[in-house]
Amino acid sequence: MDGDFPPFPLEKSRVAIVGVGLMGGSLALALRGRVAALYLADPDPETRALARAWGLGDTVAAHPEEAVRHADVILLAAPIRAMLEIIPRLAEWVHHPAVVMDVGSTKVAVCRAFETLPPRFDPIGAHPLAGKTHQGLSHADPRLFAGRTFVLSPLPRTGPRAKGFAQTLVTLLNARPVWMAPETHDRLVAFTSHAPYLLSLALTLAAPGESRAVFGPGFESGTRLAGSSPRMMLDIMMTNLDAVLEALEAVETVLEQARVALEQGREADLYALFQEALERHRKWFSA
Amino acid sequence: MDGDFPPFPLEKSRVAIVGVGLMGGSLALALRGRVAALYLADPDPETRALARAWGLGDTVAAHPEEAVRHADVILLAAPIRAMLEIIPRLAEWVHHPAVVMDVGSTKVAVCRAFETLPPRFDPIGAHPLAGKTHQGLSHADPRLFAGRTFVLSPLPRTGPRAKGFAQTLVTLLNARPVWMAPETHDRLVAFTSHAPYLLSLALTLAAPGESRAVFGPGFESGTRLAGSSPRMMLDIMMTNLDAVLEALEAVETVLEQARVALEQGREADLYALFQEALERHRKWFSA
Repeated sequence: MDGDFPPFPLEKSRVAIVGVGLMGGSLALALRGRVAALYLADPDPETRALARAWGLGDTVAAHPEEAVRHADVILLAAPIRAMLEIIPRLAEWVHHPAVVMDVGSTKVAVCRAFETLPPRFDPIGAHPLAGKTHQGLSHADPRLFAGRTFVLSPLPRTGPRAKGFAQTLVTLLNARPVWMAPETHDRLVAFTSHAPYLLSLALTLAAPGESRAVFGPGFESGTRLAGSSPRMMLDIMMTNLDAVLEALEAVETVLEQARVALEQGREADLYALFQEALERHRKWFSA
Repeated sequence: MDGDFPPFPLEKSRVAIVGVGLMGGSLALALRGRVAALYLADPDPETRALARAWGLGDTVAAHPEEAVRHADVILLAAPIRAMLEIIPRLAEWVHHPAVVMDVGSTKVAVCRAFETLPPRFDPIGAHPLAGKTHQGLSHADPRLFAGRTFVLSPLPRTGPRAKGFAQTLVTLLNARPVWMAPETHDRLVAFTSHAPYLLSLALTLAAPGESRAVFGPGFESGTRLAGSSPRMMLDIMMTNLDAVLEALEAVETVLEQARVALEQGREADLYALFQEALERHRKWFSA
């Protein structure tokens, strides 16, 4: 799926961003001044007030229709199930050709919704693997994506214009494009993001209050994902349920193996397990 | 247990550091030039070669006896069960009064061993909650402890000299002293450090190789602890088994609760769980 597509004329394009939280806001900061017009929409009044205070868009609306109706490019950066409600309405709101990209954390559900759009839309799924502990527009940063993986999930119908936009955007953000089918993406991020969130949550909720006195860097990194938005995480979980349960089961199997070895004092087995984890970790992160 | 003790004359003291890995090496870097003499011991030839190349100690020996025999202060920074072998030998090797402190990650086992030392020794347990993904002297850093919690676990027999040394050292390192009984410490760090290590290991071992394409910051932070030394972790686990199993069970109970809610599609329960984790996380880390 990888390849070189015609460069996309960003500077001549009117771009809508629907959802101006950490992701949408960071995209807006990166695109500001590089596009013909930037139309923003967010249902949260405080977010809109901040966007206006920053002079972030040419327009800042409450309703997505106002942002998308004159846009050549529509960037959807809302919680996944909000996007699943918005996508079927695009045909009513937009009557000219438009590239549509979402940046949601699961890809199968949104890409299925994209398939139902009329042919004037050129849709592509995306998922930037960038994040911060703290959510919301106030933490947005145009460099959020620099050096990060930016997954691109084209549909069979995705045309060179959407692919060209995707490549141009990823280059602008200094991100690393990874082209991947929606199903593959969702199965793998269950292991690398959704199960880790659930473990982070479990660590956070299991720790007794008095343990705060001995929080160290290990606990901070281990619980970082528990600071994610509940609405965002619920949408992720509910649109990737089978893969999440599969990943969770795989993690629980290893945990169980460690627990039994601990209970039985099987030190050689524990050491082998610890050593295997260290070797993988080194291979992955020591480069 | 907190209080003000007579300042300890570091500059007149001969200090031994047994074990010159990340912890011992960072302590040596912080103490270098501020003590009358610095005697180092480490069983690893490469570590000793690096310590000599850095001019890190007045002497660098393979055997702990050579480091401790003329020392006024003995800092033990070896794996816990190596320290449990060394402590009973101190009485043979050292015939003058000496402060003894360990910096191991569990406190009960070492403090019990300290109790058996002859009265000329003034022992105190310690645990700096500082770490790095990468271990070993080559990653040592005198600023490793700055701003970090430094748990101090005095024994009933611990005198003002050892307490004064502990306070002086913690001040020198710009760390934050937290006085805590060994039993309390071990129970709480099982939640904040040892269970998180096991979860980090489980995430690392459960992730399929191909998932590397979608590693993001969440996976990196969630698996950071899997890079810990297997020998160090095994000693930690085996000297804190009951507390680790208790913490692991508490974590698994929350995970199970989340898994069942996912399977049954109980969104309101999931949202409540996610929201509770977010609120705790904010309370802990947003200050």
